[in-house]
Amino acid sequence: MAMKQENTEQLLKRIHSYIENLPYMREPEGLYEPIEYVLGLGGKRLRPMLMLLAYNLYKEDVERIFPQAAGIETYHNFTLLHDDLMDKADMRRNKPTVHKKWNENTAILSGDAMLILAYQFMMKDCPVECMKDVMDVFGRTALEVCEGQQWDMEFETRSDVTVDEYIGMIRLKTSVLLAGALKIGAVLGGASEKDAQLLYEFGIRMGLAFQLQDDYLDVYGDPDVFGKKIGGDILCNKKTFMLITAFAHAGEADRKELQAWIDATDFVPEEKIAAVVSIYDKVGIADLCRQKINGYYEEGLRLLDEVSVASSLKENLREFVCALMDRKL
Amino acid sequence: MAMKQENTEQLLKRIHSYIENLPYMREPEGLYEPIEYVLGLGGKRLRPMLMLLAYNLYKEDVERIFPQAAGIETYHNFTLLHDDLMDKADMRRNKPTVHKKWNENTAILSGDAMLILAYQFMMKDCPVECMKDVMDVFGRTALEVCEGQQWDMEFETRSDVTVDEYIGMIRLKTSVLLAGALKIGAVLGGASEKDAQLLYEFGIRMGLAFQLQDDYLDVYGDPDVFGKKIGGDILCNKKTFMLITAFAHAGEADRKELQAWIDATDFVPEEKIAAVVSIYDKVGIADLCRQKINGYYEEGLRLLDEVSVASSLKENLREFVCALMDRKL
Repeated sequence: MAMKQENTEQLLKRIHSYIENLPYMREPEGLYEPIEYVLGLGGKRLRPMLMLLAYNLYKEDVERIFPQAAGIETYHNFTLLHDDLMDKADMRRNKPTVHKKWNENTAILSGDAMLILAYQFMMKDCPVECMKDVMDVFGRTALEVCEGQQWDMEFETRSDVTVDEYIGMIRLKTSVLLAGALKIGAVLGGASEKDAQLLYEFGIRMGLAFQLQDDYLDVYGDPDVFGKKIGGDILCNKKTFMLITAFAHAGEADRKELQAWIDATDFVPEEKIAAVVSIYDKVGIADLCRQKINGYYEEGLRLLDEVSVASSLKENLREFVCALMDRKL
Repeated sequence: MAMKQENTEQLLKRIHSYIENLPYMREPEGLYEPIEYVLGLGGKRLRPMLMLLAYNLYKEDVERIFPQAAGIETYHNFTLLHDDLMDKADMRRNKPTVHKKWNENTAILSGDAMLILAYQFMMKDCPVECMKDVMDVFGRTALEVCEGQQWDMEFETRSDVTVDEYIGMIRLKTSVLLAGALKIGAVLGGASEKDAQLLYEFGIRMGLAFQLQDDYLDVYGDPDVFGKKIGGDILCNKKTFMLITAFAHAGEADRKELQAWIDATDFVPEEKIAAVVSIYDKVGIADLCRQKINGYYEEGLRLLDEVSVASSLKENLREFVCALMDRKL
C-alpha cells in the first residue's frame, strides 16, 4: 500500500497552530511572556516543515513529531532573540525585539529559558530507541550555530576573510540547522543512516544556496518582493561572497575605490550602494553569485535523488525547497 | 561484600582534575576561551560532588558519571556567567568576569554555548535506560533555576515580598540544582524512585539552609572567614529572610527607620549597615534566622536517614554537607 503523505499547505497550517497553542506559559510571567511573544511573531516555520517533510518520507503519523518540530523552531527563535540582542537590532518581523520591548536582561534570561525549552520539546515523547541519535544531532547542531555566530561577529572586524571562510561561516550559522532538522526528521522516521546523512547533506547545500541567494537579493532583489531595504549588507560592509569575490576579481583602481567606500565613515547611503554595485557589475558578481547558488542547489537535488525512497514520495520536499528558492522545477 | 566508597577528598581531587582537563577547546577560540576561563576559576565543585556522593551510595565506579558531574558544573558556571552579566558584576572569585575581560556579546554567546555543552556532558555515555530520567531532572531543574533568577530580579523592585516568596525564590535559584545533582547521581546509581526523591528533598532542605546561612553570614559573619565584605545585602536592600522578617517584627518607629534607610540614596555605607543591624538585633533576627536554618538542616538530615542504604554508607555524604555548613555532627 502506498504511503499517505500530508498535503504541504495542510501540514504548515497544522504545525503553525501547534506552535501557537503550546502551553509555554507558566510563572513567572516576566520570563515566559517574551518567549510567547517571540514564537508568536510568526515566520515561515521552515525548520519544522523540513523536519516533518523528511519524517513523512518514511512515516505517516507526522503529528507524532510535532514536539520535536516545535523544539527546532524554539531553538531557532532563541538564536534570533540572542542574535538581535548582540546585533542591537531594534526590529524583527516588523515588531520591536525583546530587548527593546522589555530590556536586555529579559532578552538574556528568556533566551536562556527558550534554549532549555527547545531541549524539553526535543525530548518530549521521543522514542527511547531514537533519543540518543536525535539528541546527538540536535546538540552538535546547536553548538555549531553558536560557532557560526561567533565567526560572523569576528569577521566584522577582519578584512582578510576568504570565500571558503565565508562559506564555512554560513554553513554553521544557517545550513546546519536546516540540515539538522531534516536529519532529525529522518532519524525519527526510521530512515537508514545513509538516508539520514544524505538528507543532512541535502540540507547543507540548500542552506548555502538559500543564504547566498539572500545575500544576492540584498543587492539585486526587488525591494517589494524581498521585504527588506536593498543594500543593507553593503552599508554595513558585510563580508559576503559578493564583496569578497569583488575584491578578488576587481582591478587595482576598483579595489581601491571599494576599500575607500568600506573605510568611509561619512557618506550618503544611496551613493555608497550605487558605487559598490557598479563595481560589482563591472566584475560580473551577479553571474558569479548565481553560478555558485546553482551549484549548491543542483548538488543538493542530486543528493536528494540518492535517498532510497520512491521519487514520487520526495515530490513534496522537492517542491517545498524549490518554492523557497522561488524556482520552477 | 561491603561496597567500597571513595574517600571524599580523593574524589574532589579527581573531579577537579577531570573538569580542568576537559577538552572544551575547539574553534573558534573566541567562543571557547571564555568557557575554559570560567571553568578554570575553580570553585568548590559542590554540585558534582553531591552527584558523585549520591551515586556512590549505590555504586562504586564513580568515574562512570564524571561526564554528568562535569555537566552539572558546566551548567552552574553558565548561570554564574549570565547572572554576572545581568547583575553587572565585575568580579567573580577575585578575577574579572567574562563581560569585563572580553565583552557583553562574548558573555552572551559563550554562555549559550556553555549551556549546550552542559547538555552534551549530561548525555555523554549516559546509559540508555537512565537517559530519559536524567534528562527530565536536568531539564526541569535548569528551567527552574532561570525562574529563580527571574523572581530574584523582580523582587529587587518590589517592597511587598513575603518570607514564603523569598523561600520559594531561593529554592528555585539555589536549592533545586543541589537537589537535582543528588537525584541525577541517585538515578544513575540505580536508586529506587523513592530514594532518588528523598535525596532530592534532602538537597532542597540543605540548599535552603545553605542560602539562609549565606544571608546570615553576610550580616553576622567573620569577614576573614566569610570571604566577602559584611553588609553587602544590606547596602543593596536585598529582600532576604532577615530584612523581610525585620519588617514584619519591628515596631512602628523601627520600621520607619528601616524604610528610610532603604529609600536613602545618599549615605555612608558603614552607617547604614550599623543602623540596620541594630534594628535586626532589637528584633532578634539572628536567632530567628538560626532557627530557620536549623529547621531546614535537621529536616534534611531526617530525610537522608530515610534513604534505604546502610547508615554507614551515608557517612561521606552527611559529613560533606556538615562540613559545608561548618557544623560538627
